[in-house]
Amino acid sequence: MVRALSGKEIVTTEDELLAAIRKVLSAEDPGVIVPIGDDAAVVDPGGHHTVLTVDTLVDGVHFDRSVAGAHDIGFKAVTVNVSDVAAMGGSPRYGLVALALPPDVELAWVMELYGGMRQAADQYALSLVGGDTVRSDRVVVSVTVMGRVAEGRAARRSGARPGDALVVTGALGGAAGGLRIIRSDPAQGARMAGTDWGRELLSAQLRPMARVGEAETLVQAGTSAMMDISDGLALDLWRMCTASGVGARVVLDQVPVDPALGPLADAEGIDPLELALHGGEDYELLAALPPEAVEDAAAKIKERFGTTLASIGAVTERGFMAVGSDGRERPLEPRGWDHFA
Amino acid sequence: MVRALSGKEIVTTEDELLAAIRKVLSAEDPGVIVPIGDDAAVVDPGGHHTVLTVDTLVDGVHFDRSVAGAHDIGFKAVTVNVSDVAAMGGSPRYGLVALALPPDVELAWVMELYGGMRQAADQYALSLVGGDTVRSDRVVVSVTVMGRVAEGRAARRSGARPGDALVVTGALGGAAGGLRIIRSDPAQGARMAGTDWGRELLSAQLRPMARVGEAETLVQAGTSAMMDISDGLALDLWRMCTASGVGARVVLDQVPVDPALGPLADAEGIDPLELALHGGEDYELLAALPPEAVEDAAAKIKERFGTTLASIGAVTERGFMAVGSDGRERPLEPRGWDHFA
Repeated sequence: MVRALSGKEIVTTEDELLAAIRKVLSAEDPGVIVPIGDDAAVVDPGGHHTVLTVDTLVDGVHFDRSVAGAHDIGFKAVTVNVSDVAAMGGSPRYGLVALALPPDVELAWVMELYGGMRQAADQYALSLVGGDTVRSDRVVVSVTVMGRVAEGRAARRSGARPGDALVVTGALGGAAGGLRIIRSDPAQGARMAGTDWGRELLSAQLRPMARVGEAETLVQAGTSAMMDISDGLALDLWRMCTASGVGARVVLDQVPVDPALGPLADAEGIDPLELALHGGEDYELLAALPPEAVEDAAAKIKERFGTTLASIGAVTERGFMAVGSDGRERPLEPRGWDHFA
Repeated sequence: MVRALSGKEIVTTEDELLAAIRKVLSAEDPGVIVPIGDDAAVVDPGGHHTVLTVDTLVDGVHFDRSVAGAHDIGFKAVTVNVSDVAAMGGSPRYGLVALALPPDVELAWVMELYGGMRQAADQYALSLVGGDTVRSDRVVVSVTVMGRVAEGRAARRSGARPGDALVVTGALGGAAGGLRIIRSDPAQGARMAGTDWGRELLSAQLRPMARVGEAETLVQAGTSAMMDISDGLALDLWRMCTASGVGARVVLDQVPVDPALGPLADAEGIDPLELALHGGEDYELLAALPPEAVEDAAAKIKERFGTTLASIGAVTERGFMAVGSDGRERPLEPRGWDHFA
């Protein structure tokens, strides 16, 4: 976390910052079922358990007002939180919006932003029940979502067991591909944005979907650990393994790479697998399941939601390895999207 | 809300922005007991009601890192949210912290910030159970607090009835006086900060306290409407009257003005009553009570918490008036602290 720079400590990575914060905040509270360190907090308000999560999007860091429309930004701000609640096995119920606005933002932009949040809220059966608006010199959208989960049914990231299969919903790398298009030079970007695959990648980046029903199905299938893939498969899987005290072996040929990345690879010379492993912002689910439960869960998720469930490897006792097409094992780098890096 | 400026609509006041946002977000949800527009949201998660609120502090707007210590900023960030939960008649239980940090912030500063939040959380019997940290170019601290309130016991701001007495806890204007010291020229500011009254005013600004127990006592006393005074007595009372569809008559001589403002008035030529009415950030409670309940509530609040409860006037059918020492009624200006003004 800390880098010596003229004698001062500077915050450098999010995970290390979080570890430091946890030390300050760790508390003995019998009402806290899952404390800081998972996708969301679970607290016991009595009859059932409540899921609480917050995620912040900052202009220039998580989105770019000159590229993303206000409606999409709002939709995404809600979606990323719903994804966290879903990844705990919970149902989203209520949301709060804290919005910081520079003086020059037009009212129409703000209304479009809330319109996008409202659309996402309706889609995920969530009520936005409050919030706060403040002045700042840049747009900061911070959304809190509270959800419900049946007592004892919260899907933590710490329960993965050696022998479990590792599964992933949907396809990976598309959101990172879309970011690549946004950040390419304007003429080339416009060309790519005009293609079907370019639009798909941009949509993956600007309009991700949360996997609420899929998560519920995975919980019913007996998932031992689950989380959403917000910072890249490799980094998030590494976090799951660390929390569970286990290792993992990923078969690279089985990682579901977004097919729209093929044309981007031709145009930009990128490696689709690199984006799928380390790109981040896909908001797909990563889960550990008993191997015998995978086939049935995949069939149900396909039938109910049209979403594929890919088996990408297995939980192991230790080590963090990738198996290449040559059949050889190599260490998998736990590298991904880190706002603080 | 909107100002014609080169044909664009610009957001100008917080209340008008909120009114516009409410239109976009209004939802029919039987689980939402109190929607957007009160101190906090109340939602029904089944067996009991949950209070949810979020407040954001922005460096340069709500605090100044060159003046306020990180510990105080953290303490205040939690306190202002607890104050909102208390003002609903709820008990704070769980908190989430969303923190945006510029790259140059020292780790020690961040830890002090969380230390301050932790101290406030402990004081208010609140568990900080999660959050989010992101990069930005200025410090933004957004705290969400969830609390409990017994079914049917939430103290809204919309229940004030003509004939009710208006009561206020503690003393008003101190926080605005502290801000005045912070914003005065450095030499003069340092002189004032060295006095007892200067320290008291600075403490009111930098270290406000939430009135949790006092709020509970007021609910037990049968309060018909309650809110915290975050934006100044006049503006917040006006909000209560608007929400309740009533008027108010405030007896200016009975408004509890912070006694530490006397010396500040001598030094700076300010009007203490002006700060008490329109200054904001006091986080005292404003409540409407049946007149016959005031004496007993005041005695209990004094005995239990050492806090005074002042009767400052009455709820009326209509009009928004102040009675001066000359016995004359004049209109009271609903003016206060507005980050968007």
